[in-house]
Amino acid sequence: MAKTVGVIGGGQLARMMIPAALELGITIDVLAEAEGMSARLAASGVGDYHDVDTVLAFARTVDVVTFDHEHVPQPVLRALVDEGIPVHPGPDALLYAQDKLLMRARLSELGLPVPDWAAVETPAELDVFLTDHGGRAVVKTARGGYDGKGVRVVERATDADDWFTALAEDGNGGALLVEELVDFRRELAQQVARRPSGDIVAWPVVETVQRDGICAEVVAPAPASAGRVAELSEDIAVRIAEGLGVTGMLAVELFETTDDRVLVNELAMRPHNSGHWSIDGSTTSQFEQHLRAVLDLPLGVTGTLRPWSMMINVLGGPDGATMVDRYAEAMREHPTAKFHSYDKVSRPGRKVGHVTVCGDDLDEVAYQARGAAAFFEG
Amino acid sequence: MAKTVGVIGGGQLARMMIPAALELGITIDVLAEAEGMSARLAASGVGDYHDVDTVLAFARTVDVVTFDHEHVPQPVLRALVDEGIPVHPGPDALLYAQDKLLMRARLSELGLPVPDWAAVETPAELDVFLTDHGGRAVVKTARGGYDGKGVRVVERATDADDWFTALAEDGNGGALLVEELVDFRRELAQQVARRPSGDIVAWPVVETVQRDGICAEVVAPAPASAGRVAELSEDIAVRIAEGLGVTGMLAVELFETTDDRVLVNELAMRPHNSGHWSIDGSTTSQFEQHLRAVLDLPLGVTGTLRPWSMMINVLGGPDGATMVDRYAEAMREHPTAKFHSYDKVSRPGRKVGHVTVCGDDLDEVAYQARGAAAFFEG
Repeated sequence: MAKTVGVIGGGQLARMMIPAALELGITIDVLAEAEGMSARLAASGVGDYHDVDTVLAFARTVDVVTFDHEHVPQPVLRALVDEGIPVHPGPDALLYAQDKLLMRARLSELGLPVPDWAAVETPAELDVFLTDHGGRAVVKTARGGYDGKGVRVVERATDADDWFTALAEDGNGGALLVEELVDFRRELAQQVARRPSGDIVAWPVVETVQRDGICAEVVAPAPASAGRVAELSEDIAVRIAEGLGVTGMLAVELFETTDDRVLVNELAMRPHNSGHWSIDGSTTSQFEQHLRAVLDLPLGVTGTLRPWSMMINVLGGPDGATMVDRYAEAMREHPTAKFHSYDKVSRPGRKVGHVTVCGDDLDEVAYQARGAAAFFEG
Repeated sequence: MAKTVGVIGGGQLARMMIPAALELGITIDVLAEAEGMSARLAASGVGDYHDVDTVLAFARTVDVVTFDHEHVPQPVLRALVDEGIPVHPGPDALLYAQDKLLMRARLSELGLPVPDWAAVETPAELDVFLTDHGGRAVVKTARGGYDGKGVRVVERATDADDWFTALAEDGNGGALLVEELVDFRRELAQQVARRPSGDIVAWPVVETVQRDGICAEVVAPAPASAGRVAELSEDIAVRIAEGLGVTGMLAVELFETTDDRVLVNELAMRPHNSGHWSIDGSTTSQFEQHLRAVLDLPLGVTGTLRPWSMMINVLGGPDGATMVDRYAEAMREHPTAKFHSYDKVSRPGRKVGHVTVCGDDLDEVAYQARGAAAFFEG
C-alpha cells in the first residue's frame, strides 16, 4: 500500500520534497495557499491553512500531515491530532518554532546554551535590559518573523515603540523578546532528523553566511569544525529534538562566539535553507529524510559524498528573468554546478532558486558556486 | 520563459525525468499510453502515440518532443518535423534504434565493430549462416524486441520458423537478423549525451549483468576497465552518436569478447537501465543530461561522486507487494542504499524499481546493494 504524505504549504520546501517522494514511490499531496505555487505539481487543491475545516478535509485524505512552514495555527493542528491524524512535527513541538519567547524559555529550562534574553512588555523593561547589556540588544517579535523580518538591533528603549504599540493594540497581551547582541565569529547550522519512534541522525554542522538577514551561502561541513564544534553542535541539536519532541527535520541556527561558545539562535522544524546542500552533497537529502522521518521509516546515512559542498541562494532581480532564461551561459561556464529553480515569479530579493557545487577543494568549489550563481543576479 | 519538454510515453524513464525537471525548473509534460502510468504525475493527458493527430496536438503545446521509448512510428515522427517541432532524437536517428537490421548495416558502413551478421529471409539462408558459424547463432526480429524478447539462440534453421512465418504473413517483406554467438567475457554499456549543436559527453563505461535477457546488475565504472576498454567504449559510442546524428542520451550495449575485442550489441536513444546508477553516482544523472541535451543546453560533468556504484533492478513478485510495503526492514538494514520505486503495479518479472549503493569499496557496495534489493524479491 503506497503511502501519502500531505504537506501544508506550497512553497519551495514542499516543491523539493517532490523529487524525493517520486524516487521513493511515496505519494505527496500539497495543500497550497494559492494557484501557481512553487509546489503546484503535487498540489491537489488550494485552501486556507487557517481554516480548520479546509485542513481537516485535506488531512483525512493522507497518511501523515507535515509542513512547508510553521504558520498553521495551534487550534487547527490540535483538531487534526484530536481526529487521530498523524501530524509531524506535532503541535506540542511546533509551538516552540512558532513562538520565540516560548522557545527561549524552554531551551533555558533544558539547560541549553542561549544568548542572555528577557521577555519585555514595556519600553521601561527594555531600557533595563539595554543598561545591563552595554546599551545594545536585539529585539524580536515572538511570532511571524522570517528572513530577518521581526528582528531589529536597538540602542534606545524607544527603538521598538511601534512593536510595543502593536502588541498593546493586539489585545492579547504578550511581550517582545530581547536578547544580548552576541559577539559571534560566524554562524553555523545543525540539521538533525528524528523519527516518532525516537531514532535521530545528524548531518555535519555547516557554516552559514547571511546578508541583510537572509541566508546567502552555506558551506558543508563548516570549515575547521571537526572535533569540538561539531560535537557541541550535534549535541545541542539532538538535545533540542528530544527535549521538544521534534519529529521530522530540525534545523538549529547557531552562533559560534568569539569566546568559543556555541549558542542557539533560531529553530526550524522542517527542511531549511541551510540544509539544501544535502540534495547534492549528502547520501540522504534533508527532503528525503523528512519524508522518511514523518512516515516513521528508518533514516538514511547523512555523510558527505564529496569533501566540500557550497550552496548559494539565488535571489530574484528587478528584470523578472528566471534562472531558466540564463542557463545557457551559466551551464557552459560551470559544468560542475547543480542548478535548482523554484519556478517562482522573480521579484527583487525573493529566493527563486539555489546553486550547489560539490568537490575536493573548497576554494575551487566556492569559485564555481559563486560564479554560477552570479549569472542569475538581477 | 520556462521551457516545456514533451515526453511521449509514461513509463519509468519518463518518471525519472520528473525530479530532474523539477530541480531545473523545466516543465515536463507526458503523453501517457494509459491512466495510472509510472509518470502520471507529469501526464497532462492520455493518448495513442501511433495516432498522428493525437501526437501533433500534444507536440504543439511543448518546446521540444522526446521519448520514454523508441516505438513512435516514423510517419508520426516525420509529421512533427514537417511542422517544425523540435524532436530529439529525430526520426533519422531513431530509425536505427527501431530497426536492428538497419542499425547493423549502418554501423558496418561506419566501420564500427559489430558481431558477424546477416539479413536472412528464409530458413535456407539461416542454414548457410549456421554452417559458417559453427552451428549456433542468435536470431533477432528487426523490430519490437526488448528485455530479451525477440532474441533467440538457434542451432537449426527450423528454430526460427515461427518468425519467418510471421514475416511472410506480415506482407511487408523483411528479414530476420542473424548474428554470430559472441564468445564474451562480460557485457558493458556506454552512455553518452549529445546536443543538437554537437557537444558530446561520456560517462565511465559500466559492466552489466543480465539474467533471462533482463538487466539485473550494473557496476559503475566497469571493474578493470580504465585505459583501453574505457577508451574503446567511449570512442565507439561517440562515433555512433555522431554517425547516426543522435541527440539526447545514447546507450550502447557492448560485448567484451574473450579475445579482447569490444563489439556493439544494441543501441537505445534515451535514458537506459544501464545508466540508472548515475542518479546517485554521478554529478549529472542521465535524466538531467537528457533534458539538458534535448533543450540544447550545455551538458553537465559526468564524473563519479564515489569510486563505485552498483545498481540492482527490482522485479515484481507474485505477491503483488510494492517496494514501499517493504521499506521498513530494507531501510533499517541498509541505510546507505538509495531506493527507487517506479510506482507500477507489481507483476512477476516486471521492473518495478531499482536500488543503488555508492561507496569506496566495491565488495561492500555490492553486499549492501544486493542485500537491500533482496528485501523486495517476491
